[in-house]
Amino acid sequence: MYYIGIDIGGTNLKAGLVDESYRITATKKQPLQFESMEQMGETLAGMAIALAEENGIARDQIASVGMGFPGPVDDRRGVVIKTVNIPIRFMPVAEMFHRRWADVPVHLGNDADCAALGEYYHYEDKNIESLILVTLGTGIGTGIILGGRIHTGINGCAGEGGHTIIVHGGEQCTCGRKGCWERYGSANALIRQTMAAMEQHKDSMMWEMVGDSDHVGGRTAFEAMRRGDAAAKAVVDQYLRYLADGLSNFVNIFQPEVIALGGGVSHERDEDLLLPLQSMVLEDCFGREADRHTRLVKARLGNDAGIIGAALLGLQGGSH
Amino acid sequence: MYYIGIDIGGTNLKAGLVDESYRITATKKQPLQFESMEQMGETLAGMAIALAEENGIARDQIASVGMGFPGPVDDRRGVVIKTVNIPIRFMPVAEMFHRRWADVPVHLGNDADCAALGEYYHYEDKNIESLILVTLGTGIGTGIILGGRIHTGINGCAGEGGHTIIVHGGEQCTCGRKGCWERYGSANALIRQTMAAMEQHKDSMMWEMVGDSDHVGGRTAFEAMRRGDAAAKAVVDQYLRYLADGLSNFVNIFQPEVIALGGGVSHERDEDLLLPLQSMVLEDCFGREADRHTRLVKARLGNDAGIIGAALLGLQGGSH
Repeated sequence: MYYIGIDIGGTNLKAGLVDESYRITATKKQPLQFESMEQMGETLAGMAIALAEENGIARDQIASVGMGFPGPVDDRRGVVIKTVNIPIRFMPVAEMFHRRWADVPVHLGNDADCAALGEYYHYEDKNIESLILVTLGTGIGTGIILGGRIHTGINGCAGEGGHTIIVHGGEQCTCGRKGCWERYGSANALIRQTMAAMEQHKDSMMWEMVGDSDHVGGRTAFEAMRRGDAAAKAVVDQYLRYLADGLSNFVNIFQPEVIALGGGVSHERDEDLLLPLQSMVLEDCFGREADRHTRLVKARLGNDAGIIGAALLGLQGGSH
Repeated sequence: MYYIGIDIGGTNLKAGLVDESYRITATKKQPLQFESMEQMGETLAGMAIALAEENGIARDQIASVGMGFPGPVDDRRGVVIKTVNIPIRFMPVAEMFHRRWADVPVHLGNDADCAALGEYYHYEDKNIESLILVTLGTGIGTGIILGGRIHTGINGCAGEGGHTIIVHGGEQCTCGRKGCWERYGSANALIRQTMAAMEQHKDSMMWEMVGDSDHVGGRTAFEAMRRGDAAAKAVVDQYLRYLADGLSNFVNIFQPEVIALGGGVSHERDEDLLLPLQSMVLEDCFGREADRHTRLVKARLGNDAGIIGAALLGLQGGSH
C-alpha cells in the first residue's frame, strides 16, 4: 500500500507518494492558483489521482490521502477552518475531495503538525512516546506529538508554541500579543537582532561580510562569531538565551521524549547551536534529578517532513 | 467498591475513602512524622488499612490505593523520585506499601496532577477531552489531563506550568530561572505586588485596611479596589494581565476543553477575576475563529481535589 501526502503552501502545492517504509517514492508539484474553494477541492483531488496514475499505482493501492494546510483544521469533520495567505474559511475539503475520489480515506492536518508527525515516524527509536518539532523560520512553528498522535486541542488550533509570551510587554507580534517567543527566537528575529547590533557597532566585521544591511541573513551573526567578532557573539549568545527560554518552558510543561529543531537556523554547526542549547535547557529545566531527560536533537527530514507527515496522518494510533 | 486516596503534604497526611460516585465518605488525618523512607511506607500502608477497617470496609472492597506526593513520581515503577520539604529520594513506595498490604493495586501521582484529575472527574460534563487545573497559591501549580489521563512526561516531571518564563530576565525564581509565571501570578506574587504598591502610595486606602504591611493578604488589593482605591485597582489590573499572559500561553499550546482556576485567589468575585480573565484570554488566544473555545472556570473541589484525584489514579483510561 501507498499513502499520498499533499503539502498546501501559499505558493505551491506539493504532493508525494509515500511507501510503507515512510519514504517518498515520487512527487508532483504545481503552483497554487486559487479561484474558489470548489476549484481548490477539485485541484487537490485531481493532483492525488494524477500522482497515483502517473506512477502506475491503482487507486485501491492508496491507503489514504492526507493534506497539510497552513492553518487550523477539524480532521474529524474534514473541514479546514482557515488558512494563512489563502482565502479559505470553513472549507469542507474531505467532502469536496470525495466528489472526485469517493472511496479513499481523507485526513487533514495543520502543516506544522504534519511536519512533526513526519519527524516522529522517522525518529531512530520507533517507540518514543512524544516528540515536539520546533521550526525556526519566518516565525516559530511547533507541532506536538503525544502518544503517537498530533495534539490538536478541541478546535484544531493547538500547538502554537511560537505564540507564547516569554517577554511580558515585549515586541508587538503579528498575532496581536506582545512578547511572543517567535518575536525573539525565529530566524527573522535573529536577522532583526543582527541588524540592530550592526547599527550599534559600525566597526563590526559583519559589515564587511554583508556589504549592506539588505544582505543580513540568519547565518551572518553565527559566521562572524566564528571569525572572532565580539558584537556577533553577543547577538548569538542572546539569541540562544531566547531559544533556551522557550525550549525550557516546553520541557517544564511536557517533559517530552524528544524536541527536534528544524528550519534554516537548525543547520548551524552543533557546537554553536545544538550543544549550547542542550546545556542551557538541561541546566534550566525541571527533572534534572530524574533518570530520563528530553533529548534535544536536529530535525531530519527538512522540507519533506510536511509531505510525509500529511501522508501518514491516517496512521496515528489511539482514539481522538 | 471503594478507592482510597492519600494526600501527602509537608505537614499532614490526609487519607480519604472515595465511593463509586467519586465522593469522599470518610477521612483520616495525621501529622507527618518522617523518620525514614521505610517508616514512611509503613505509615502510609497502616493509614490505608486503618481507614478501611474503621469504616467497616473489607480489604477486598478496596479497588485501589492512590497517593499524591509533592514532587515527581514514576507511577509505572511505583517510585517517588523526590519531594519538596520531605527528604524522600527514589522511594519505592509501591513495594514498601505491598509489604503490609500485598494484593491491592497502588498508584502514585504528583499532588498537583492528582488535584487536576479530581477536578476532571467532577466536571459537570463527563465527556470532556482535556482539563488543566491552575492553582494560584504559594506558587502556581498546574496539572494537565489529556484524553482522561495525567500528562506526566517521560520522567514524571511534566506539568510545571508555573515554571515557564513569561518575563525574560525577570524576578529570580526558586527553581533557578528568572521570570517564571509563578513569580508574577501566584497568591504570594500578588501579596508582594500589593506591598510594593502600598510603599509607593502612602495615601492608599490599603494602609487603613491592613494596619501594617505584615497583614497584607491576597485579598487586600481586590477588597480596596472594590472600595474605590486607585492604587489597588492598578495592582489588580496588572496582576490579571500577568495571569492572562500565562493562561493564554496555555490555550495557544493546548486548546484544552477546560482550564479550571483553583487556590485562594480563585475565590475572588467572578466580576473581579474570572470574567475579566475570560475576556482577556479570548481576546489574546489563537482559535478565536473556531467554533469551540477553552472554557475558563473556577475549580470545584478545593482541598478535597487532591484526595479524590489520588484515589482515582487507577481509573485513568488508555495506556501509559
